[in-house]
Amino acid sequence: MTSQAQLDHVFGALADATRRAILARLVRGEATVNELVGPFDLKQPTISKHLKVLERAGLVSRGREAQFRPVRLNAAPLAYAAKWIGSYRRLWEDSFDRLDAFLESSQPTPKKGKQNGRKQ
Amino acid sequence: MTSQAQLDHVFGALADATRRAILARLVRGEATVNELVGPFDLKQPTISKHLKVLERAGLVSRGREAQFRPVRLNAAPLAYAAKWIGSYRRLWEDSFDRLDAFLESSQPTPKKGKQNGRKQ
Repeated sequence: MTSQAQLDHVFGALADATRRAILARLVRGEATVNELVGPFDLKQPTISKHLKVLERAGLVSRGREAQFRPVRLNAAPLAYAAKWIGSYRRLWEDSFDRLDAFLESSQPTPKKGKQNGRKQ
Repeated sequence: MTSQAQLDHVFGALADATRRAILARLVRGEATVNELVGPFDLKQPTISKHLKVLERAGLVSRGREAQFRPVRLNAAPLAYAAKWIGSYRRLWEDSFDRLDAFLESSQPTPKKGKQNGRKQ
């Protein structure tokens, strides 16, 4: 898989709240599909479909035990996604700095002692 | 928009190589849709469709000038995506450490002076 295709799959897999919640659940340890069905209040085929998307992105893998095939988290592909996003860090930090500067410049100068006026 | 819906939109917008390339182009400065059509070898409706997805995620905004409406990058929503992914950093770093340890333990011990044998 090219790195672009891998990024497509990883970002695509993360673009769904249920799939992100499945990953968050798997941080605590592997789980069977049935164990994942309970907390998510979704039918098994829906969970299986989400797992296929996560598996294609390399974010989970399935055990070989025929009956249960526990699902395990594989966080490594997130490193590539983090690297791509991280290359924009300077840009968003600059935009937050500009926002801070704007908010600071547009606030009225606070009057000293106003908040504790009643106690004075 | 809830933070989950915002993450859905941002990750969904990033799940396409053309959209990531459009963002990379906009780092160099704003561009009209026509200026974006050229380098991507795509038809204008396709670029416009990608821009709508990026706009919904808050990653670009359009100018108000009626005829050209230049497209600008807005990197701020990437901060939320980076924060979400960053919460898994420890996990992927651990998995890389385990891989390093495995590779180190499975390599044969190098024999001293073997590489420069001919010079000895």
